[in-house]
Amino acid sequence: MHKNKRIVVVGAGFGGIELVKKLNKKQFDILLIDRNNYHNFQPLLYQVATGGLEPDSIAYPVRRIFRKYEHISFKMAEVKQVDVDNGILETSIGNITFDYLVVATGSMTNFFNFDAVKDAMFNLKSIPDALNLRSFLFQNLEKAFAKKEKAKLEEMINVAIVGGGPAGIELAGALAEMKKYMLPKDFPGLDLTKMHINLYEAAPKLLSAMSDEASVKALDFLKQLGVNVFLDAKVSNYDGKVVQLGDGTTFLTDTLVWAAGVKGAPIEGLSQDFITKGNRIKVNEFNQILGTKNCFAIGDVAAYESEKNPKGLPMLAPVAQQQGSLLAKNLQKLVSGKEMSSFSYKNKGVMATIGRNRAVVDLPHYKFQGVFAWFVWMFVHIFSLVGFRNKSIAFIDWFSNYLNYDRPLGLIIRPYHKKILKEHKIEGNLFPKKLPSLLHK
Amino acid sequence: MHKNKRIVVVGAGFGGIELVKKLNKKQFDILLIDRNNYHNFQPLLYQVATGGLEPDSIAYPVRRIFRKYEHISFKMAEVKQVDVDNGILETSIGNITFDYLVVATGSMTNFFNFDAVKDAMFNLKSIPDALNLRSFLFQNLEKAFAKKEKAKLEEMINVAIVGGGPAGIELAGALAEMKKYMLPKDFPGLDLTKMHINLYEAAPKLLSAMSDEASVKALDFLKQLGVNVFLDAKVSNYDGKVVQLGDGTTFLTDTLVWAAGVKGAPIEGLSQDFITKGNRIKVNEFNQILGTKNCFAIGDVAAYESEKNPKGLPMLAPVAQQQGSLLAKNLQKLVSGKEMSSFSYKNKGVMATIGRNRAVVDLPHYKFQGVFAWFVWMFVHIFSLVGFRNKSIAFIDWFSNYLNYDRPLGLIIRPYHKKILKEHKIEGNLFPKKLPSLLHK
Repeated sequence: MHKNKRIVVVGAGFGGIELVKKLNKKQFDILLIDRNNYHNFQPLLYQVATGGLEPDSIAYPVRRIFRKYEHISFKMAEVKQVDVDNGILETSIGNITFDYLVVATGSMTNFFNFDAVKDAMFNLKSIPDALNLRSFLFQNLEKAFAKKEKAKLEEMINVAIVGGGPAGIELAGALAEMKKYMLPKDFPGLDLTKMHINLYEAAPKLLSAMSDEASVKALDFLKQLGVNVFLDAKVSNYDGKVVQLGDGTTFLTDTLVWAAGVKGAPIEGLSQDFITKGNRIKVNEFNQILGTKNCFAIGDVAAYESEKNPKGLPMLAPVAQQQGSLLAKNLQKLVSGKEMSSFSYKNKGVMATIGRNRAVVDLPHYKFQGVFAWFVWMFVHIFSLVGFRNKSIAFIDWFSNYLNYDRPLGLIIRPYHKKILKEHKIEGNLFPKKLPSLLHK
Repeated sequence: MHKNKRIVVVGAGFGGIELVKKLNKKQFDILLIDRNNYHNFQPLLYQVATGGLEPDSIAYPVRRIFRKYEHISFKMAEVKQVDVDNGILETSIGNITFDYLVVATGSMTNFFNFDAVKDAMFNLKSIPDALNLRSFLFQNLEKAFAKKEKAKLEEMINVAIVGGGPAGIELAGALAEMKKYMLPKDFPGLDLTKMHINLYEAAPKLLSAMSDEASVKALDFLKQLGVNVFLDAKVSNYDGKVVQLGDGTTFLTDTLVWAAGVKGAPIEGLSQDFITKGNRIKVNEFNQILGTKNCFAIGDVAAYESEKNPKGLPMLAPVAQQQGSLLAKNLQKLVSGKEMSSFSYKNKGVMATIGRNRAVVDLPHYKFQGVFAWFVWMFVHIFSLVGFRNKSIAFIDWFSNYLNYDRPLGLIIRPYHKKILKEHKIEGNLFPKKLPSLLHK
């Protein structure tokens, strides 16, 4: 009997899940691995950080997704490295052999020159990241309310966000709404006029991957909500307490959220020749890793540098999903000796929300902002969640949030304490002269 | 102007919340403090541990409960000690003065002679406890499924529960249902015949605080679900891997849940003369701490040793709530120079559930078990949850659990690793000859 081809897919993100679902065919023996036992809906992490949603609304056990898929199995494991030549993946649960390997490991935060001070900052790439930020924000509010800390009130309740992409503006909007509607009810007497939410963007406009209309309107919405937006603003230093800007100004805060960039998160063992700008893996038009026959990469971690897209495609969920979907077909073609089809990205639109009734949507031929955009954003996100339970609970939370101008919960389940930096003074302008823009229009 | 009397209440459990709500009167200035910023519904912690409910369904921010209560403020703080004579409470947010103090700090796990090995065990007194147990259970299932661990399959998937009170039997029932309905779907091919759930009870019957009918039926229900129940069974040793019983038998498991007892969790600074059996604070019929005029204790931490109840009242939520409610009236009487009323407990019934359609209910004049008891249990618990959101989501989760024979989620958000015991051999019979029974019939 002919042995089934063994396909190993690393990463249960948008790309990996889509690929594996479509690949569920009898000629394959498919193994999906991920370091977590859940798929997590990254675009809504800022909602978890601000108590708008609970983790269980944006995460879903991978096993549940594939319960009825006969040819797919899932294992929770950490990848150590790949041996491409021998078709072996070394993992925390032992060596796994493959006929075909798909790397769908996504991206991670890029701290650029701020790597040395990253422990003093927050970022939003995982559910624990989001929960740590939430605990820290609410712990500081409790401390400020108790008025027994030596630290200044401003230091405890100010928030700095670095990066004016979707992650940065969505977080800033949610925090501004919290400050406006929820905190006066929960912390009566706390002097919220001392609380500033500062958003720093190094470029001259917000949302550089979106239209000018969206950028301008997003800025307008943030200002309406009371966020202080600084454009052309380069952070030059952060010691855990004081943010220093390139122009010499400073801002006092315990809480700096780094949303200024991501980079690919490739697995170890691939030749450095395959790694390109932004730490992404070089692939061809079939998402085949250059220099290999049986290894592929899709999603954020993959870069197909073509004339049309010299920097590769944007790091967005729909790109990963479309690549996963096509790769499923291409792998079937490959094993039956047919020619594979080239990938081409169908842009179905990009959107971002700044808070209740305030969102910006760029469709390929139509742009709109405001209340309707917000409803579109909300429904698209609810329907994109995995599982009926997640959809229902996110709907309940957002609907009650909408009616009550409130965030449902702010439980400090596991208190979080930032690591104290050993040296509070770091010299020099740590920010790169020019931020590599991984997104394109 | 007459200065308001300052009442400080420590602990936002069932007793503290009830007291403070009823005490919201203009002659008082009330401060409630708790180490957490949420109230947590302890009777359902086993549901969180087994993925039947999420933490946000059984926890509710204390601030939200009291948003509209004018004379109450809440602060998150850890109590260091009390100076009764000078009316000062030392806390993590500084010294707090009081005219009246109410200690409502509840209970904690009593490991008895097993204190030395408690890091190798699990217990269920807080939300982090429940989440740790959940993560550990699911991590072990993932490891067992990956079949790459050196440890024996049985060691990874067996579970031992020590204690046949409500906490023990409810957890055992939930685990047995997980094993029967959910695990075969999520871990196809895992040899679940090797998974044993053993429940050890030192007394000759389960649920010693309930009727004989309830005990017998609970045993029957557990057997139906495949739980191995051992009565008159004394655990003599546990080294993190092997449970040793008094009769010389052993049981191999990584996961031992200690549900064999609780003790009071009084605050520091009270004279040892006020502390009685079970680490509880001695109070009189007005819940006044003996030897003091202005300090009170209610709930699990308080013991009024009367002729009728020589061991004090049972450690149950209704006792704490009734004491809180009466104390609110008594404090008003006290400040207006009237005589206080004595507490007397109105038993409204006790119940426990062993799983879907299987519960036992003892009302004062009527006892019943089975399907109807389960529905009563479910509705009483849903309606006891704080907040509309919690009620709705618990209802959705249980309703879908009921229809699908499934548990909604098992996300390993923060992996948990037990501390390895330095010495795996501990000599002697560690279990006390006679377990102090804090509950009475």
